Amino acid sequence: MTTVFRSLALAVVLATMGIGTVRAGSEAPAGYYADQKVVYHNGGSGPDEAAYFKRLLANLRNHVEAVGKAHVEIRVVSLGDGVGLFQSAANDKELAGRIDALKGMGVRFLVCANTLRERKIDRTTLYGVGEDDLVPSGVAELARLQAMGFAYIHP
Amino acid sequence: MTTVFRSLALAVVLATMGIGTVRAGSEAPAGYYADQKVVYHNGGSGPDEAAYFKRLLANLRNHVEAVGKAHVEIRVVSLGDGVGLFQSAANDKELAGRIDALKGMGVRFLVCANTLRERKIDRTTLYGVGEDDLVPSGVAELARLQAMGFAYIHP
Amino acid sequence: MTTVFRSLALAVVLATMGIGTVRAGSEAPAGYYADQKVVYHNGGSGPDEAAYFKRLLANLRNHVEAVGKAHVEIRVVSLGDGVGLFQSAANDKELAGRIDALKGMGVRFLVCANTLRERKIDRTTLYGVGEDDLVPSGVAELARLQAMGFAYIHP
Repeated sequence: MTTVFRSLALAVVLATMGIGTVRAGSEAPAGYYADQKVVYHNGGSGPDEAAYFKRLLANLRNHVEAVGKAHVEIRVVSLGDGVGLFQSAANDKELAGRIDALKGMGVRFLVCANTLRERKIDRTTLYGVGEDDLVPSGVAELARLQAMGFAYIHP
Repeated sequence: MTTVFRSLALAVVLATMGIGTVRAGSEAPAGYYADQKVVYHNGGSGPDEAAYFKRLLANLRNHVEAVGKAHVEIRVVSLGDGVGLFQSAANDKELAGRIDALKGMGVRFLVCANTLRERKIDRTTLYGVGEDDLVPSGVAELARLQAMGFAYIHP
Repeated sequence: MTTVFRSLALAVVLATMGIGTVRAGSEAPAGYYADQKVVYHNGGSGPDEAAYFKRLLANLRNHVEAVGKAHVEIRVVSLGDGVGLFQSAANDKELAGRIDALKGMGVRFLVCANTLRERKIDRTTLYGVGEDDLVPSGVAELARLQAMGFAYIHP
């Protein structure tokens, strides 16, 4: 398909021979992706937050499917307006279902405790956010995870 | 508070015993954050730039307070519309005060010389931007700092 | 010009003596920039996509000129609405010309195959996008390149 792919000829040949496996749900040949650790920055994005959250969740699903659930560790850090994702999901079953599906695929959703305190948001009003999902500061967590080898993506 | 925190039980116990110190202004237990180096990308964000700049400065303050002034090195690279932050501050004492407070907390504000030249902006019309605060190219500086181990955050 | 520059006095002196070279088109003294690898995230940015694409391309040109063509490897990953860049360029000779100029400067433009499939976009309707320019997943590529040492910039 691409030059990069062709350069992976050996991996493909090995896969064809049954050595190595092509991951289900992935378009990439075996070996194209090394295991990944990724942190997503969800700060919201007005004026159309609903469209932004939909796109964010679609990105996450595509990411896991491309690399394979067993080969990617994703953490989503929500802060500021990004916390609206879990407020919306409390009244939107489809959105809630998508979040749950992503959790089932191994995606971890973290929420900034600073934001909740400053905006006086009660954690229990947020869909699916437990005590264990809080981090002291969203921005500090983004830096912390990058220092631990996580790539950064801000959709 | 979270699983991560509980797993830091030892650190907490040590802190309680007076061994190690809990940082003032931080919600995280001692040891949760390693020392951080972070570059913030300020490219502005229309149509409501004023709200964006306010949020950016709030993020910065929260970041320093969470990790502790002595434990985080932050550089803010302003380019393109982001330079408007310092134009606004020239006519807005509250905004200027927030920038000064962040400088007092160790945050360094860098400005893209390319942007100033292309937009014919006189540096001296910008609030608090000296010769020493200019970098040749904002985007190249973002890449340069990341290669030097800085995490990247684009609010 | 800045403190950083002054601290590079030795490099400047050497350059003045004809030892080392000041790169053409660059404002920075020789030695300020180490060789760079950078991935740009182009996800589009409504409502004014045209302005966003113009700014993105200007950033890219400035980046290459600041560091020097031989010293920076840039890949632009376009996904989601970002693919609109190549749809617009199909009907906009000036935009197409800018993309071509950047390719001539060594910038590589990659396009998310996932996006094309989901939006039923025919690759051949995109300006200057060949089979070799497709990557299986844009987001996974952003993570993959960062793990390979590329800095990340999302304008």
